[in-house]
Amino acid sequence: MARFLNNDRQIPKSEQTMSNLLTILGSGSARPTRDRQPSAQLLELDDKQFLIDCGEGTQIALAQMGLRTPRLDHIFISHLHGDHCFGLMGLISTWGMLGRTKSLTLHAPSILESLMRPLLDFFCQGLPFEVVFQPHNTNRHEIIYEDRTLRVSTLPLKHKVPCCGFLFEEKEREPHIRKELIEQYQIPLADIPHIKAGGDFITADGRHIPYAELTFPAQAPLRYAYCSDTAYTERLLPWIDGVDWLYHEATFAAEDEHRCKDTAHSTTLQAATIAQKAHVRNLIIGHFSARKVSVEAMLQEARSIFRSTIAAHDKMQIELN
Amino acid sequence: MARFLNNDRQIPKSEQTMSNLLTILGSGSARPTRDRQPSAQLLELDDKQFLIDCGEGTQIALAQMGLRTPRLDHIFISHLHGDHCFGLMGLISTWGMLGRTKSLTLHAPSILESLMRPLLDFFCQGLPFEVVFQPHNTNRHEIIYEDRTLRVSTLPLKHKVPCCGFLFEEKEREPHIRKELIEQYQIPLADIPHIKAGGDFITADGRHIPYAELTFPAQAPLRYAYCSDTAYTERLLPWIDGVDWLYHEATFAAEDEHRCKDTAHSTTLQAATIAQKAHVRNLIIGHFSARKVSVEAMLQEARSIFRSTIAAHDKMQIELN
Repeated sequence: MARFLNNDRQIPKSEQTMSNLLTILGSGSARPTRDRQPSAQLLELDDKQFLIDCGEGTQIALAQMGLRTPRLDHIFISHLHGDHCFGLMGLISTWGMLGRTKSLTLHAPSILESLMRPLLDFFCQGLPFEVVFQPHNTNRHEIIYEDRTLRVSTLPLKHKVPCCGFLFEEKEREPHIRKELIEQYQIPLADIPHIKAGGDFITADGRHIPYAELTFPAQAPLRYAYCSDTAYTERLLPWIDGVDWLYHEATFAAEDEHRCKDTAHSTTLQAATIAQKAHVRNLIIGHFSARKVSVEAMLQEARSIFRSTIAAHDKMQIELN
Repeated sequence: MARFLNNDRQIPKSEQTMSNLLTILGSGSARPTRDRQPSAQLLELDDKQFLIDCGEGTQIALAQMGLRTPRLDHIFISHLHGDHCFGLMGLISTWGMLGRTKSLTLHAPSILESLMRPLLDFFCQGLPFEVVFQPHNTNRHEIIYEDRTLRVSTLPLKHKVPCCGFLFEEKEREPHIRKELIEQYQIPLADIPHIKAGGDFITADGRHIPYAELTFPAQAPLRYAYCSDTAYTERLLPWIDGVDWLYHEATFAAEDEHRCKDTAHSTTLQAATIAQKAHVRNLIIGHFSARKVSVEAMLQEARSIFRSTIAAHDKMQIELN
């Protein structure tokens, strides 16, 4: 799809902004309800797809939404509670039946491999693709995935079992050269990297053309932080400072704060406080308790502290740009 | 709820017919689709609840339908393909969170225990109820569950892995004594078992009251046979002869019969032929392939051979009486 910056200049395909889309597959907590299934999100970023957590029913939600995942090669599992990983076996089995051949990397606490290998050996004999287990240390903030345009790092969380969130960050892009000026000023191709790096250009007749005239900035890198499950922890703040989107669990309403200690979860107000203190642009709350609660009321609670908050629901799609 | 046989006599609670209800939780085959999830059925019979197969999403479908399962103590697993058992861990975890204390028996091929124990030990530490694995031999027709009013037996099927269906049968009930005649003929309580067993009664003044006048028949025992997954096999016929309801898989339309050999599944016409040859009263077809097919057309195919056929769909409820 062609996108236009203004009416007279079409952005070349190589410079087009990809659709960066977050699909909430499951916004519930441990126990499914009439409206919410366990945690899973499909993140589409820079023309790649990532699955974040994979609770039971993930492949069913994908099928119900008619979503295809040909570019999904990495799954990130925050922690080994069933509501964040019981959908893995079904998804992998189905991909095997569909003839997937590309390897699939599971980023997860190391014990997942010992739990899943016997199941894969039994239920997925002859699987036509490799499942690579890529363990990470949930207690360290470190890069666990990187490619030309993106990196993913862990965000240590405070939960009852080893648990981390994930920070997805686009890399800084070089500014774009205004192509019509290349011809106008007869700029040699060899000079372009120098200009993109911030240099000015001197024409053959000695005119000084400033960098700012020759270029326009690339879109600011997008940053998305996924933080579930966790008790309130300010340790997060420096890592997620200023992110465009923060998904932070809000299992409980404020009045149920006493339940946070035993369960190591957060309230609406705590999630919103983290968003505020981290200067994020937008907050998404989710992982709502299965107890009878008004999510609308929970949303208002969060908004009382951090206005730019939305409440996740299953099958919600959020355009991140 | 009081039920009336006719306008002037209320059936005592002890004689009331329980609601015998079959809920289709998943009517799809291996791969979920927009409309169908993997196999699972909730059978409510004689005030007890049984789960038959437990594909991924079983607990989610129960939650979506608002179905509670306080009387569900036995789960029957036909075979160890993921689409028939990947929902077990989620269901058991959730029941643990809900504080279930009654033991749960899993009737399944024996290897299930070795696959699930490590998962239960890891994901369900401190589970407040016992999970009892009750293995059965899928290649023998034998009773695997029995109580005062019901029995369940295995139905060996023909599939790519050891697999059996299940026959749920109410036991024959004694006829009911017409209570108003007990007083009229001054029948001693001690004589009632004799009468219920078919004996006549002689009054004090020598009158001969025939059995048929003193009693009315109990409702005929209900029989439900679940047969999924299977290739066409007439070995089934004697065991399911005359059942009230037969669920028989019909993964493929007739034109796809060539796919049955490799996959060990059945077509619509084969399912209907089994129903016809077994003189069943009603056929339910399900386990439809995820390929684009018209279930309505498949239903018409089956009805061309066996008229009293219905097509399962997810969340369908069938009153079996």
